[in-house]
Amino acid sequence: MSEKKFIYGILYDYYGDLLKDNQANIIDMYYNLDYSLSEIAEEMNISRQGVYDALKRAEKSLTDYEDKMKLHEKYEKHLKAAENIVKLASCIDDEKYKGAVEQIKAEAVKIINEG
Amino acid sequence: MSEKKFIYGILYDYYGDLLKDNQANIIDMYYNLDYSLSEIAEEMNISRQGVYDALKRAEKSLTDYEDKMKLHEKYEKHLKAAENIVKLASCIDDEKYKGAVEQIKAEAVKIINEG
Repeated sequence: MSEKKFIYGILYDYYGDLLKDNQANIIDMYYNLDYSLSEIAEEMNISRQGVYDALKRAEKSLTDYEDKMKLHEKYEKHLKAAENIVKLASCIDDEKYKGAVEQIKAEAVKIINEG
Repeated sequence: MSEKKFIYGILYDYYGDLLKDNQANIIDMYYNLDYSLSEIAEEMNISRQGVYDALKRAEKSLTDYEDKMKLHEKYEKHLKAAENIVKLASCIDDEKYKGAVEQIKAEAVKIINEG
């Protein structure tokens, strides 16, 4: 997967619900389901150029949303902090604190998994 | 502060950047700066009814964004997990692990403060 595909796939997870339906569908088909422009055109019964234009508009919308809201940037910070917590907790290797350490790790994993 | 004011103030922090400029200004003046509708009308040189209509549209946009993206709901989950981590780490009262415990707390506080 190209880096571009990877990035738009992630931004779609955050902001896909804010796109117009047809733009969301096009981004999903192109970046997540790996359809070609021609395949999307056939599926949606519009021209290949129409798909291309809608895709570019959708990409710009996703980038604009991230510029304004920086959800991915924030998530990366939370992720890093939570991963550090898991690592640090793993250093506390003591039967007496085993319960607390396991619970700390479980709470950090919630943050990592929720996004 | 009424609960409604509190909620729209919070949603404005998350989604204010997605509102049209005049809507964002009206929400900010009304919910954060405590202007009356008439004061906003005078400030913006539009009718009181115009301010009211724009305010209602902006409130609906904020609620729609939260329904779609649930950022506040997600943040509350991260906040709760991070607060639990601070509490659990505080139970590990042992000179040997003092450094790790302090670092765990510091990482959790980053999550709490960043929102």
